[in-house]
Amino acid sequence: MSTPAATLAAGTLPQPGGGFSRAGDLFQLLRDGRARTRAELAEITGLARSTVATRIEALMAAGLISPAGEAVSSGGRPPSRFAFLPTSRVVLAADVGATHVLIALTDLDGRVLSESKTAISIADGPVQVLDLLISHCRKLLSQAGRHERELAGIGIGLPGPVEHSTGRPANPPIMPGWDGFDVPGYVQQSLAAHVLVDNDVNIMALGERAAYWPLDNDLLFIKVATGIGAGVINGGVLQRGADGTAGDIGHVRVARGEGMLCRCGNYGCLEALASGPAIAAALSAGGVPAKTGEDVLALARRGNVAAVQAMRQAGRDVGDVLATCVNLLNPSVIVIGGGLSAAGEYLMAGVREVVYQRSLPLATARLRIVQSMAGDQAGVLGASRMVIDHVLAPSSVDALLAPA
Amino acid sequence: MSTPAATLAAGTLPQPGGGFSRAGDLFQLLRDGRARTRAELAEITGLARSTVATRIEALMAAGLISPAGEAVSSGGRPPSRFAFLPTSRVVLAADVGATHVLIALTDLDGRVLSESKTAISIADGPVQVLDLLISHCRKLLSQAGRHERELAGIGIGLPGPVEHSTGRPANPPIMPGWDGFDVPGYVQQSLAAHVLVDNDVNIMALGERAAYWPLDNDLLFIKVATGIGAGVINGGVLQRGADGTAGDIGHVRVARGEGMLCRCGNYGCLEALASGPAIAAALSAGGVPAKTGEDVLALARRGNVAAVQAMRQAGRDVGDVLATCVNLLNPSVIVIGGGLSAAGEYLMAGVREVVYQRSLPLATARLRIVQSMAGDQAGVLGASRMVIDHVLAPSSVDALLAPA
Repeated sequence: MSTPAATLAAGTLPQPGGGFSRAGDLFQLLRDGRARTRAELAEITGLARSTVATRIEALMAAGLISPAGEAVSSGGRPPSRFAFLPTSRVVLAADVGATHVLIALTDLDGRVLSESKTAISIADGPVQVLDLLISHCRKLLSQAGRHERELAGIGIGLPGPVEHSTGRPANPPIMPGWDGFDVPGYVQQSLAAHVLVDNDVNIMALGERAAYWPLDNDLLFIKVATGIGAGVINGGVLQRGADGTAGDIGHVRVARGEGMLCRCGNYGCLEALASGPAIAAALSAGGVPAKTGEDVLALARRGNVAAVQAMRQAGRDVGDVLATCVNLLNPSVIVIGGGLSAAGEYLMAGVREVVYQRSLPLATARLRIVQSMAGDQAGVLGASRMVIDHVLAPSSVDALLAPA
Repeated sequence: MSTPAATLAAGTLPQPGGGFSRAGDLFQLLRDGRARTRAELAEITGLARSTVATRIEALMAAGLISPAGEAVSSGGRPPSRFAFLPTSRVVLAADVGATHVLIALTDLDGRVLSESKTAISIADGPVQVLDLLISHCRKLLSQAGRHERELAGIGIGLPGPVEHSTGRPANPPIMPGWDGFDVPGYVQQSLAAHVLVDNDVNIMALGERAAYWPLDNDLLFIKVATGIGAGVINGGVLQRGADGTAGDIGHVRVARGEGMLCRCGNYGCLEALASGPAIAAALSAGGVPAKTGEDVLALARRGNVAAVQAMRQAGRDVGDVLATCVNLLNPSVIVIGGGLSAAGEYLMAGVREVVYQRSLPLATARLRIVQSMAGDQAGVLGASRMVIDHVLAPSSVDALLAPA
């Protein structure tokens, strides 16, 4: 993960010379949850006994580790064991959509302690939306009896492109007033914590993997809703690409879309065919009134044949693009999420039909194409994971330990 | 990089507890080429002085580091400085093609010390081809006055799918007799060294990046020749995917290929349109006799308009698939290599035309689409880099240092 400006502002500097110089490195050993003695830690790391003792003190003081029983004595007082304490700090995770924001309070294992959902309008602009977000964050903290100083960080997903390194939205099409806005800086005026921002599809990919597919290092998450996008995890790492636009498959040209105008100004984009509004428009043109993806879903659930067929065809169009992605990246799991995936098997059947037909046999032999299991929680689980992976990394732990 | 079986066989075990426990970790600090004293290393790492001294001894004994002048004394004898010694060991890198094998001897910086090219026929099977490869490896070593014990490892690229973790070819279409053959095991019967094997396109991607684009973490290498394939580097790491088939874009279906039979048995694959034999066949059908990609190249170079047009159209077909790859992965560089890329601008023009037309503006704003600069050397440069990255990793350096 790149080091966000928000962190640099908080005083962390990149560590020279690789990963074994600070207390944060010792902590990585303990993150697996196993309890160890000072002597064991000194032996494993090759660090001097005195160095281990100092770092254990610092990690204890920060509340990141705690004594976890005693080892068997080889004579004299039995030595203490220490282990990671995931409840010591909390994370606030917010998934901001066009019409609502879901906020969760989690521990350092990503376990959701409480959550709240609030109606917003993204078009009200960043100040109004973030003020509401901040007040709900405060409420969640106080209801849980936690203090602001226990906050390890805040993760925010936004419904548009974000420059992850600065946390600023970059030309977001449905977010008037947000372009270039310093989201971390604004939030940090009210809440003193690391603030990491990414687009909603990236954090959904992180959340789905963290909660349900932790052993799968090559995973594609596809959101099919008002827009269509992908979160790309390769080699266990979320890939943002050279300019942060990785995963933008909504505007790949699809053969069946020939001549259809997309809201991006191009013709034949996947979104112009398979997004909620596009399916609704096609249904309406065929005499079945529908305006949104929700209308299409409702029709399909009532057994409307045209709606069912349209959903399946949208699945095939998505599958058309995914077949290329599968040949290129050979993922072991494709997770389909977003509002339209709630239509259960209609969309999935279309996706599976085309991907298994068009991708290479070797690339699909063990490929699973599944519906999102995290559902509405994918975003907050991922925003929490983004923060945890960042703040528990060696250099960040050092920053946590540094005197304020 | 996953740990190949060849390495496990040589006695390396995965290291528990992260990266700061062994001599190999100290070495990572020195790989940057800067000379440091024992005291500096102890301070940077937090390791005990005695531990640093022992590890420096071991790395010196292995020849991986050497004294590099003296620091300024603060009284008494001035302390010695130590630095990485890239000429201490050598790497053999082999790029095996269908009709020839290129072998290079490099140092630990990937610098080519000498090379040789030999005609082979891949269809002669692994024993005959590898025996020839081994004898040429021995010749290169002895001509350079280096000994087998100075060999840090051997990297081999093969013209077909390879299970990288075992080094065995996996259903390679043009390599009769090679399927499942234990390439590392066979080579190690003659040469005692780590042996790493991958497919030719993956090592070409590694080589092109190492030699010309070291700062670009998101790079696609496309080989256009008898076959078409890609090497995918994301986040600075070569991505092999869940089953090692990542990059197999030759069998993505292209709209213009409707109804055209591919050698894989499917219809409409990119390879059935834009590979050397496919272009030659299309030219022949139009009355311009050509059998291979080389024939097409020769025609284009003589200014044959049909051949020039066919090359450019092949570029457009490749671009059609790459446009999707660009939206999905947002690379900063696409390198086009392989035999047909030698046609200079004809193929490139077609690729650029379609990629810039169809990909998102944000994703192409800083995208460079360039011809391979490593050319014929891309494979050996990459095979060498694959070995260097592996053998100089902490756990492998420990193995080098272990008593034989």
